[in-house]
Amino acid sequence: MRYALPEGVKCLAALSIEYDAESVEWGFKKSISGADDVGGFATKYGVPNLLGVLKKHGVMATFFIPAWDAERNPDTVRGIAAAGHEIAAHGYVHEDFSRLSEKEEREVFEKAHRILRDITGQTPRGFRSAAYARPISPNTLKIARDMGYIYDSSFLDDDEPYRINIDNAPVRMVEIPWAWVLNDIVWMAPPINYSGMGYVLPQRPPAFVLDVWKEEFDSLYAEVGFFNLVIHPRDIGRFSRLAIIESLLGFIQSYPEVRFATYSEVAEYCLKQA
Amino acid sequence: MRYALPEGVKCLAALSIEYDAESVEWGFKKSISGADDVGGFATKYGVPNLLGVLKKHGVMATFFIPAWDAERNPDTVRGIAAAGHEIAAHGYVHEDFSRLSEKEEREVFEKAHRILRDITGQTPRGFRSAAYARPISPNTLKIARDMGYIYDSSFLDDDEPYRINIDNAPVRMVEIPWAWVLNDIVWMAPPINYSGMGYVLPQRPPAFVLDVWKEEFDSLYAEVGFFNLVIHPRDIGRFSRLAIIESLLGFIQSYPEVRFATYSEVAEYCLKQA
Amino acid sequence: MRYALPEGVKCLAALSIEYDAESVEWGFKKSISGADDVGGFATKYGVPNLLGVLKKHGVMATFFIPAWDAERNPDTVRGIAAAGHEIAAHGYVHEDFSRLSEKEEREVFEKAHRILRDITGQTPRGFRSAAYARPISPNTLKIARDMGYIYDSSFLDDDEPYRINIDNAPVRMVEIPWAWVLNDIVWMAPPINYSGMGYVLPQRPPAFVLDVWKEEFDSLYAEVGFFNLVIHPRDIGRFSRLAIIESLLGFIQSYPEVRFATYSEVAEYCLKQA
Amino acid sequence: MRYALPEGVKCLAALSIEYDAESVEWGFKKSISGADDVGGFATKYGVPNLLGVLKKHGVMATFFIPAWDAERNPDTVRGIAAAGHEIAAHGYVHEDFSRLSEKEEREVFEKAHRILRDITGQTPRGFRSAAYARPISPNTLKIARDMGYIYDSSFLDDDEPYRINIDNAPVRMVEIPWAWVLNDIVWMAPPINYSGMGYVLPQRPPAFVLDVWKEEFDSLYAEVGFFNLVIHPRDIGRFSRLAIIESLLGFIQSYPEVRFATYSEVAEYCLKQA
Repeated sequence: MRYALPEGVKCLAALSIEYDAESVEWGFKKSISGADDVGGFATKYGVPNLLGVLKKHGVMATFFIPAWDAERNPDTVRGIAAAGHEIAAHGYVHEDFSRLSEKEEREVFEKAHRILRDITGQTPRGFRSAAYARPISPNTLKIARDMGYIYDSSFLDDDEPYRINIDNAPVRMVEIPWAWVLNDIVWMAPPINYSGMGYVLPQRPPAFVLDVWKEEFDSLYAEVGFFNLVIHPRDIGRFSRLAIIESLLGFIQSYPEVRFATYSEVAEYCLKQA
Repeated sequence: MRYALPEGVKCLAALSIEYDAESVEWGFKKSISGADDVGGFATKYGVPNLLGVLKKHGVMATFFIPAWDAERNPDTVRGIAAAGHEIAAHGYVHEDFSRLSEKEEREVFEKAHRILRDITGQTPRGFRSAAYARPISPNTLKIARDMGYIYDSSFLDDDEPYRINIDNAPVRMVEIPWAWVLNDIVWMAPPINYSGMGYVLPQRPPAFVLDVWKEEFDSLYAEVGFFNLVIHPRDIGRFSRLAIIESLLGFIQSYPEVRFATYSEVAEYCLKQA
Repeated sequence: MRYALPEGVKCLAALSIEYDAESVEWGFKKSISGADDVGGFATKYGVPNLLGVLKKHGVMATFFIPAWDAERNPDTVRGIAAAGHEIAAHGYVHEDFSRLSEKEEREVFEKAHRILRDITGQTPRGFRSAAYARPISPNTLKIARDMGYIYDSSFLDDDEPYRINIDNAPVRMVEIPWAWVLNDIVWMAPPINYSGMGYVLPQRPPAFVLDVWKEEFDSLYAEVGFFNLVIHPRDIGRFSRLAIIESLLGFIQSYPEVRFATYSEVAEYCLKQA
Repeated sequence: MRYALPEGVKCLAALSIEYDAESVEWGFKKSISGADDVGGFATKYGVPNLLGVLKKHGVMATFFIPAWDAERNPDTVRGIAAAGHEIAAHGYVHEDFSRLSEKEEREVFEKAHRILRDITGQTPRGFRSAAYARPISPNTLKIARDMGYIYDSSFLDDDEPYRINIDNAPVRMVEIPWAWVLNDIVWMAPPINYSGMGYVLPQRPPAFVLDVWKEEFDSLYAEVGFFNLVIHPRDIGRFSRLAIIESLLGFIQSYPEVRFATYSEVAEYCLKQA
């Protein structure tokens, strides 16, 4: 890492969980009604299943949650926070910020923030765009900064955290980038065919995905010192796939001097050195 | 399962077969004429092949059949019913219910119901939407209830049956959800390019698919007690692929205390306890 | 097979080669100019490479050739015919027959027929639609019959030849259907993105494809008695992929009582019994 | 090869690296802002990582660089040139030349040429179209010739270099064609969903890709005497994937009488014999 790692730590490992429930279908199709809708699965099985695995391994994760989903599933969201995980902003209902005015975008940020805080008692400290195939707006990072957030995680342009610049000046906010290869939707999202979206991603068996992620961890441990995984309860939350996460966490914990950290912790390490 | 299983049963296994013949091409392209059309294969090879495997293993399945196909292939449909399998509703010809008025949708339901009943002598007791990439309408579940159906199977939001609510009140109808990973089209449907559809799904060899489904059964047997497979004679009905079903049925039957059940039987187990 | 096989033959094997050169790009994009264009490869490497393999194994194939390509590469087409292979009609330049009047479609058929005959001295005896993603017209089969053709090969609705009906009466023409799983474009066509087309098919290594096709042959040999492969010089004609065809032909020839036959020979066997 | 190889050389191996940074997102979406944007990764990790591997193996590559990216990352581009690699033209910012007038296209060529030359001190000697899914214009080759370029590399119609004809007469320019199977985007580009583009390519593990490319080299070494690989720092530049290039270069160097050559060297060999 460009940033010094904490003493005795050779690699930070961060796990983010995008708890997208029915908001995906509602945001893209204005419909929750039948085939292609796997949002409900996330709530009924995906989140409880993943919380169980995390508890078993003593790992704290960062949950990015669309506030629309939080409003509809407050008990699930409270349960996530009560287990000690970080709650982070993920928009209201999969907005395309590039089509909103700055005022409208600010209102979405504030509304989402308020809902997550009111439900969990936790104040969100960072944001990730939920609109993968669509750009964020020129105002997004400014608004995130004005919300007091200390990190954004919407970019794919690096393998490790870096200081965010706005108008060519560094601000007190860190980018924590992610990579497609370390996002479960590339390997196991169902075929989707919403208007404006057209991802048809081939399903992969669990052992296949586990091997790829182990290779990624191995090289990032050796060369970068930072590992960042993005998963979705709707996709990887099936019983048959939990073994991927179980095995991967065990694999990571078997390496010397690895520390799991939430996104807030990662951001604080970096900002302390800025 | 949330519902108690029958005594001596640790897992219910349900097998649904969507006998979509030329209705797919007609419904989406208004054409049955050459390349991309594999509907006829379902009738000539797919259904007879699958009926043979089911008979060999003594398994009763639930056949969802577009009534348009039933009208054109009444002998095949009668043969399915005569072999003791369940006949269930699957629309007339791949309607997009979200674009029909409630009246039009009711007429489709009634017409499809009447055709299946008149051909087979069996009264359909449940429904699955045939329009995977398109939402069902806000009226669909109400109409299914009014038809006297005891189950719907159009949703992907759970791993086991649950009671359906309409206007926030439970009705005498159970949802029997399915999952993409347990649907053969994800693994072996040909590339299709109809207007409004664009699935291009990579072909998988039989051994690959069998391994994935065995893993799914294994975890669902242990954790949920319910297993639900969706297959299509046009896709999995090739001689080279029948071995998947042969092997899977044998694999499932080798587990202690598994019972195969039709969708009606599953719905009745659940409703008895409601 | 529904038709009796020749004495001493347990399985007929037919190999069709679609020699689509630049006509693909011209037909769909009106352009032959750079990326996405692999038509030229078919002429320079694909056809010579495949002719070599066929000669080595003593197998005669049926070449479906767009006449537009034949006009531009007459020596290649003459070489194919001179080696004893069958020349069959494949349209002029990837027409969408469903958009032509009957008169226009007839003119295309006659023009393509004349060009292939004039170049090779061989009279085409059958046809396959070159417009995979688009339907043939209601007139196509009638026109093919009027051309004196004894087979069509545009449908995917069966695993073996069947007699064609026009206006509910059998005509002296056989359908020789094909299947996606036995078409090389499913396994190794490059990503294409023409308007009106959008196939993005994952590339497969040769050993993978060979295994799938061997399994197909094995089951069709045992259960149907007919095997029909569709390949393209532009796709499978690379040196690295010829081994698929080499190995497959050897594998097929190792089975007892297999006979390779051209499409005309297949059609004649069937019509003799009608 | 049709051209005689240098004495003592049985196979030429050429490696081209398309250093597409944010120009991809800007050219197709007019946006560099979040998800789907991996351009920055190419600059921060991809190029340095690949330069390290090339140095270790003593291989000189040809870098095709959109001038828009060069303007934004001049130090990276200077570093590439300083390490002895060839700098080649790749347009300004992923133009669709088929939509430009000849005058506009000439201006793009001249501007891109000037920028690359001014930054690196190296004069580009060849060009590859950066608009994979879109045709080049009827003027492109003429303009490339007028720029004094000795090669183009935009076509996929052959397995080895050939002399370019313009208006049916050979010019002093060689086509160095490439093949999809030897382009890393087929195996590991992330899902992209830009308007006008829709490639969704399945991710492959490194060992899978290495095996395919070894097989390709093996057959091209034996049969053609020319091997040409196309890679992208944004895709193959991850630490976990560098091993593909490391292993492949070692594999190639283990063959007798192989010589790595830049595209200019390849073109000069050929033109010397014309």
